[in-house]
Amino acid sequence: MPSTYPSFRHSVPWLILLLEAVFIVLSYFLDSIVDAHFPYPDLQDVSHMLIFGFGFFLTFLKRYSFSSTGFSLLIVILGVQCSILMEHVSVLLTEISLSGIPGAAMSTVAVVISIGAVLGKMNPMQSIVMVVVEIVVFYVSRWINIYLLQASSHVSMMHVHLFGAYFGLAVSSRFSEPSPRSEKNASTPRSDLLSMLGTLFLWVFWPSFNSVLAVEKDRAIFNTCLALAVSAVAAFAFSGLITKDGKFRMTHIRRAALAGGVTIGFAADSIKHPWIAMILGLLASAISVLGSFCLQSCLPTLRTHDASGVHFTFGLPAVFGALAEVVFFVMDIQTKLPSIGNEVLLSIGALCFTISVALITGLITGLILNFKLWKPIPVSKYFEDQMYWEFPHLAVGF
Amino acid sequence: MPSTYPSFRHSVPWLILLLEAVFIVLSYFLDSIVDAHFPYPDLQDVSHMLIFGFGFFLTFLKRYSFSSTGFSLLIVILGVQCSILMEHVSVLLTEISLSGIPGAAMSTVAVVISIGAVLGKMNPMQSIVMVVVEIVVFYVSRWINIYLLQASSHVSMMHVHLFGAYFGLAVSSRFSEPSPRSEKNASTPRSDLLSMLGTLFLWVFWPSFNSVLAVEKDRAIFNTCLALAVSAVAAFAFSGLITKDGKFRMTHIRRAALAGGVTIGFAADSIKHPWIAMILGLLASAISVLGSFCLQSCLPTLRTHDASGVHFTFGLPAVFGALAEVVFFVMDIQTKLPSIGNEVLLSIGALCFTISVALITGLITGLILNFKLWKPIPVSKYFEDQMYWEFPHLAVGF
Amino acid sequence: MPSTYPSFRHSVPWLILLLEAVFIVLSYFLDSIVDAHFPYPDLQDVSHMLIFGFGFFLTFLKRYSFSSTGFSLLIVILGVQCSILMEHVSVLLTEISLSGIPGAAMSTVAVVISIGAVLGKMNPMQSIVMVVVEIVVFYVSRWINIYLLQASSHVSMMHVHLFGAYFGLAVSSRFSEPSPRSEKNASTPRSDLLSMLGTLFLWVFWPSFNSVLAVEKDRAIFNTCLALAVSAVAAFAFSGLITKDGKFRMTHIRRAALAGGVTIGFAADSIKHPWIAMILGLLASAISVLGSFCLQSCLPTLRTHDASGVHFTFGLPAVFGALAEVVFFVMDIQTKLPSIGNEVLLSIGALCFTISVALITGLITGLILNFKLWKPIPVSKYFEDQMYWEFPHLAVGF
Repeated sequence: MPSTYPSFRHSVPWLILLLEAVFIVLSYFLDSIVDAHFPYPDLQDVSHMLIFGFGFFLTFLKRYSFSSTGFSLLIVILGVQCSILMEHVSVLLTEISLSGIPGAAMSTVAVVISIGAVLGKMNPMQSIVMVVVEIVVFYVSRWINIYLLQASSHVSMMHVHLFGAYFGLAVSSRFSEPSPRSEKNASTPRSDLLSMLGTLFLWVFWPSFNSVLAVEKDRAIFNTCLALAVSAVAAFAFSGLITKDGKFRMTHIRRAALAGGVTIGFAADSIKHPWIAMILGLLASAISVLGSFCLQSCLPTLRTHDASGVHFTFGLPAVFGALAEVVFFVMDIQTKLPSIGNEVLLSIGALCFTISVALITGLITGLILNFKLWKPIPVSKYFEDQMYWEFPHLAVGF
Repeated sequence: MPSTYPSFRHSVPWLILLLEAVFIVLSYFLDSIVDAHFPYPDLQDVSHMLIFGFGFFLTFLKRYSFSSTGFSLLIVILGVQCSILMEHVSVLLTEISLSGIPGAAMSTVAVVISIGAVLGKMNPMQSIVMVVVEIVVFYVSRWINIYLLQASSHVSMMHVHLFGAYFGLAVSSRFSEPSPRSEKNASTPRSDLLSMLGTLFLWVFWPSFNSVLAVEKDRAIFNTCLALAVSAVAAFAFSGLITKDGKFRMTHIRRAALAGGVTIGFAADSIKHPWIAMILGLLASAISVLGSFCLQSCLPTLRTHDASGVHFTFGLPAVFGALAEVVFFVMDIQTKLPSIGNEVLLSIGALCFTISVALITGLITGLILNFKLWKPIPVSKYFEDQMYWEFPHLAVGF
Repeated sequence: MPSTYPSFRHSVPWLILLLEAVFIVLSYFLDSIVDAHFPYPDLQDVSHMLIFGFGFFLTFLKRYSFSSTGFSLLIVILGVQCSILMEHVSVLLTEISLSGIPGAAMSTVAVVISIGAVLGKMNPMQSIVMVVVEIVVFYVSRWINIYLLQASSHVSMMHVHLFGAYFGLAVSSRFSEPSPRSEKNASTPRSDLLSMLGTLFLWVFWPSFNSVLAVEKDRAIFNTCLALAVSAVAAFAFSGLITKDGKFRMTHIRRAALAGGVTIGFAADSIKHPWIAMILGLLASAISVLGSFCLQSCLPTLRTHDASGVHFTFGLPAVFGALAEVVFFVMDIQTKLPSIGNEVLLSIGALCFTISVALITGLITGLILNFKLWKPIPVSKYFEDQMYWEFPHLAVGF
């Protein structure tokens, strides 16, 4: 009974075309300030992460693989286009580019993380609106972080994980929770394996991601490699410790393997000893696996449904990384006491500010996205490709 | 009843070994003129496109995934070897290399596109013969384009999409059409997803492809990125507009996402404004999706069976791109009127010449490939792996 | 009846954490001698091979895909960490680094090849112990090859294929052979296709692997490309020749396609004529396909169970490549007779020494790994993911 599904024929295509028209018209007027410099190798690594990594990281739901891959592509490209526009706006207002085109691509990670938190619950209309709102808010937040809270371009970009995770969780809290016995909210070995392929793409290119805006690129790459290595290995240990019979759970491995890269991001280019990076990776892995275990067993009432565990993959590890960076900073310059206090305050301020903005704007966005206008989908139709895709094997004729 | 399948044991292996012997012997004699320069990074990006991109782009048929991936590998490598030989012949005759080893790899795209048009209908013998014939003809056509019609090396290489698509369609027109109710000529969600993986590889590396022979590489990369982005996003819009209930069709997304890259190829290094590249991407996407819609509903009699829609992915977008380049050229130099007429005539001449050569030689090749000599497969055995591959789960013993 | 499986809860996690603690403590003490130079692009290509290539190359077993991918990741990272440690030990003892961080990553190939030989028969405890033992022995063997047998850094690294294959086979000979009718020791078309994806990753990045430590990098890349191309194409010919009805077998294609890269490795940077590289590729392919055919039909008694055919993919082609290099060396310098004899003796000595060390230490390791201490798994539980992984679709609740 396909007629029971709402049709997006009169909304989604026109919204997409409208957005593209806006981008084209604006690029006509902003033509002269387009960045002449185009660092293709940097961009290539980031785009591999966005297209292959996040495109397949989210394919773990058994009946949602077309939407996971397809809408990821749609959302990533719209996000990058919005980001480039915001870069231009920033240049117009302040005459300084925040982070160029690779930075615009990196900002899109926020959107993909947020989509992960509400995976399978939003229709394309809602996703597209969320992309536009989130990118604009993230740019404003970065702008305030850089100009008022004196965060570096690199650190303010690393907030992308924080922002994406908490924005997504806040939006998710405004959507109905699926039935815990929902048969569709599950993975199969095959979909889990495909998701592992995406995770490996993210894992392999994470050192590039952490080094694009870093001052000391080589050191950032080296430290990220170390942290990622330890966190991936430790993921097996922690997963074996908390599951029944000591078996491994693929979800734990996927999440914890990436947690090391998220945590090390903030301090990647300033850590001077390999063992520090390795310990950070170990702790990130522990936070990711044990965090999900504790929160789920101790605080079920606090829990917001988090479709792909972005809180434990990106949120908590990023908070930990930001705090670790403050500690390193204090330990590094122990002499000039008065200035330290100020710097530490600013760093912690930037962290709290980003989380607050993400939570508040996420809640508001979640409320807006539940308006009837966007035709929100009922809980019974969550996690289903058939809503949005024509299936070849079901098509009559062709 | 495996005995009902024809055996290629006495033909295919010896044909392959013969070809390799020829390549080895010729490389012995052509040893001294081998190109010393070997631009590995360029080649790597092109080889990712050929091996991963086209290898998996064609895996959408449900019972033909081994052949799609396996024979793609076989055909790509044979094609590259033929192309390198033709490069050497060109150096011998004219003392100038057409485009070096990366160019040789790029020329192979023609073959893979043509194979896409007749996917599942040719046995390996026929495929190998087609590869050799098509590469030789394409090199002759490029040679005439460059030396007689004064096309640049870059533009004449971009004809590869045109040539591949129309050569393949012409060959396809000489093969029987499968029954429209054929259960095997269909995809499953899983095979469609694998094909999406291939498409994403093509999509991500397309900017490299368009810049290898371009004069202004950075600009070619930037413009291609823009066109690809817009065409992929617009694919969702156009697909939603023409399907029932506004659902998306994966086939549309796959085709239209690449159409932008094909169209922008010709003018990628000469377009000076981002908005032009974006509009080209939008129009390419429209041509790809709406073109297939119109041709299938309005002109069913004209239709040749096009197994993977190469006409709408590569053929039409390339024609449009070649025409757009002529228009840009006219708009760019509006002063020197007499010389423009000449240049425009040559450009359009090159376009028509390439299409004509592709269609005529394709038809002749199609006729030749239907000789009994090559043991053409009956329509009932189209789109079947079991013809060519031993299946592990069906094997007795080991 | 999950209770019938042994639980590794009290062993594997603690072993992993212990190892990580050792690595962190040692990196604390070895801090000052950490290599400042970090050639990221080289490392990236090698890590693509290790993570994607070997990660998916081994996924051909139908019920072992989680373990193949997951444990590959675990083993590769532990292996790289061990190797980096051995590099440091080597610097401490001899003040010269053997091959730096990319070399440490390359050494890990030995472990992944060995795991391939015993795929599905070892539990994670045994795998981890094997990794540590094998890396240490391989480094000692390389050290002796370089300092006593005067092998170059490049050639001694190319022994990695030899060492991995024969160490793995020796270990495998100490494990019970699975029943030939075992339903689980088989692949499905889907798992074979995933394994093909891994093979293609290995194939595409093999030129990088062969050139990392080579003196003349460009030549090494070029020759490796040629050999890989010919061996992949010839794989189809040889596979068609030896199977019933001339059908292709995916296993042959996978193995023989890589054989060319293994064989050419030793002499990749010294071969001066393309046709020599092509002939080597052709012969490597023949050895890989026909070798498996001959050994299986003629010498079934000699056969050790070789889960993924590492003997025919890496072992035999590497022996052939090492011998070919000696022949080239003799043909190259035909004048200084006395010194040649010495050099040839040393080269053949290095080859025999590596194989002997691999076989002897492999046998000993195999014996040790069968101790009750490691809870070896019974034959009936071979090739099964369920032993080690929680399955989402079988999980109750979440």
